[in-house]
Amino acid sequence: MNDQSRLPILLTMGDACGIGPEIIAKAFMTGDAAGCVVVGDVAVMRRAVRCVASLAGVAQVPTLRDAGALPPRVMPVLEPAGLVRGEGEFAFGRVDARAARAAATCIEAAVRLCRSGDAAALATAPIHKEAWHAAGIPFPGHTEMLQSLAADAGSPPPVRMMLANPQLRTVLVTIHVSLRQAIEMVTFERVLETLQIAHREALGRGGRKPRIAVAALNPHAGEGGLFGDEEIRHIAPAIEAARAQGIDASGPYPPDTVFMRARHARGHAGAFDVVVAMTHDHGLIPVKYLGVEHGVNVTLGLPFVRTSPDHGTAFDIAGTGRADPRSLVAAIRMARQLAAPA
Amino acid sequence: MNDQSRLPILLTMGDACGIGPEIIAKAFMTGDAAGCVVVGDVAVMRRAVRCVASLAGVAQVPTLRDAGALPPRVMPVLEPAGLVRGEGEFAFGRVDARAARAAATCIEAAVRLCRSGDAAALATAPIHKEAWHAAGIPFPGHTEMLQSLAADAGSPPPVRMMLANPQLRTVLVTIHVSLRQAIEMVTFERVLETLQIAHREALGRGGRKPRIAVAALNPHAGEGGLFGDEEIRHIAPAIEAARAQGIDASGPYPPDTVFMRARHARGHAGAFDVVVAMTHDHGLIPVKYLGVEHGVNVTLGLPFVRTSPDHGTAFDIAGTGRADPRSLVAAIRMARQLAAPA
Repeated sequence: MNDQSRLPILLTMGDACGIGPEIIAKAFMTGDAAGCVVVGDVAVMRRAVRCVASLAGVAQVPTLRDAGALPPRVMPVLEPAGLVRGEGEFAFGRVDARAARAAATCIEAAVRLCRSGDAAALATAPIHKEAWHAAGIPFPGHTEMLQSLAADAGSPPPVRMMLANPQLRTVLVTIHVSLRQAIEMVTFERVLETLQIAHREALGRGGRKPRIAVAALNPHAGEGGLFGDEEIRHIAPAIEAARAQGIDASGPYPPDTVFMRARHARGHAGAFDVVVAMTHDHGLIPVKYLGVEHGVNVTLGLPFVRTSPDHGTAFDIAGTGRADPRSLVAAIRMARQLAAPA
Repeated sequence: MNDQSRLPILLTMGDACGIGPEIIAKAFMTGDAAGCVVVGDVAVMRRAVRCVASLAGVAQVPTLRDAGALPPRVMPVLEPAGLVRGEGEFAFGRVDARAARAAATCIEAAVRLCRSGDAAALATAPIHKEAWHAAGIPFPGHTEMLQSLAADAGSPPPVRMMLANPQLRTVLVTIHVSLRQAIEMVTFERVLETLQIAHREALGRGGRKPRIAVAALNPHAGEGGLFGDEEIRHIAPAIEAARAQGIDASGPYPPDTVFMRARHARGHAGAFDVVVAMTHDHGLIPVKYLGVEHGVNVTLGLPFVRTSPDHGTAFDIAGTGRADPRSLVAAIRMARQLAAPA
């Protein structure tokens, strides 16, 4: 087995018409991307470095091993085979199917390197969904593509989205469906599976058991069945089953106060390590409340660590050098932490 | 018309077996209840003063007018006619139907004084629902009782709960129902009525129009109908109708970021004055996220101002003097502000 802490973290460049390449360039400039290798287009990354007036150099590397020999603040870029090159000409802020195709090729190559044990983890810069659609890429986004790449011959592994910042980590039972449909998806099986995934991965692969709080679906956790019975029928039994498996899960707690109780801040030791939320917005409202700059998106359940910044391609400011790299930097840190827990 | 700013704010003592009387005593001790008159049981309030080792004196006043002549830090207590007195013997932490009856009598008297123009506003200390039930009081809580007292011969006025702290104010379209039922209650009429009430009262009766953000029901505000159509069918049309009436409402915005955008903090001027939320927990998760100590509950829609602390009777610590008065103090401040806006 390789020493995970010495293996590189891969950064996929994302859509070259968006802010992905320039936030990567900023992260190298500040030293926050030390130990990372970009999987991308060398010309695109050179343009990004110019955009942000970075002093970082760009060096094409034939293999990941070559990256280690570079001096500090030089950005190693691995160009995957079959890359559709933009020759630095992808127009900022435009939907471009070629850029989408290039982004997809980088993701495929990066996943291969993670799965072969040559890289420790993957942090992905944003792609543009409309461009993917125009390119005929048969996935709505990163997550579904990564699931498919992880499927091999079998069925895709179940995954869950975790959104994390230094104060709060929340894992979502349901995401991109209507609230009506989300309620239907709150089943014993799905809640238990979420708890199993969160237990296995939310706090990394080593160290102590995460303390998992389960937020209820209904106000006051259903008030004993008066305000809905999903807690009684599905959520409480799933918590009980998880506990029987040695998972440190508790709840269901009233949604309005459990995130407050889990919040870690100076002078406020959170009572839990992670909160499992039944709906997209129960979980994301508190994570985003104090600002999205430090938010990281993590896909749990894949056979490798994958994180991403919690924002999109920001076509409106792409190429101006104004994009904020903090969420990407947080994603790199989180990838490092999850790949090689203390 | 009376000068609202010189009229007293009434504090109902709440359930004498809980922490209500002692947090009132603390508020007088610190001067935060200056200009307030307690509607309650003199013996109960004397016991509360002893509980918290307060230097405040207690003076029974025959009428509200008599309160003005008292020296500072003396707590004026008006005993309403027909009060069931506990002779200071209501046991702390016990469900007691007589204490419930006494609390209800105080509320009725305080409402009469507000409605006759003798008091500016009402801040209510917590009652105990189980005790109310034991006493046969036909209301589940304060709100329904106040609505009934405001109904006169007609039907009770529609009301909405607002939860507020110094950073965020949120008005709820639905509250104590299951999430399933809440979705059914998100109708054009109910959303529009909420906007009208919030517009009229959320920021007081004077001053500029409140900027109201409307949080959607579904993730990503429904993503154009892909994740639910309540935004298209009900919420957006209600916002449009409200705007046609001169209400500064906008949205529907994705729930996960609108509270962040509305948050007022040092260096972060909130983009809105109030957020209308479709469900109990969409609204209360962000208001409570940073702590409940400064949270105030306001009932909008009544013919008088009514606020309350955002906690219950805390039977487990009643009589120990440990109860935190900050939420009550915030409720008194908010009552003052809403009754006599700058």
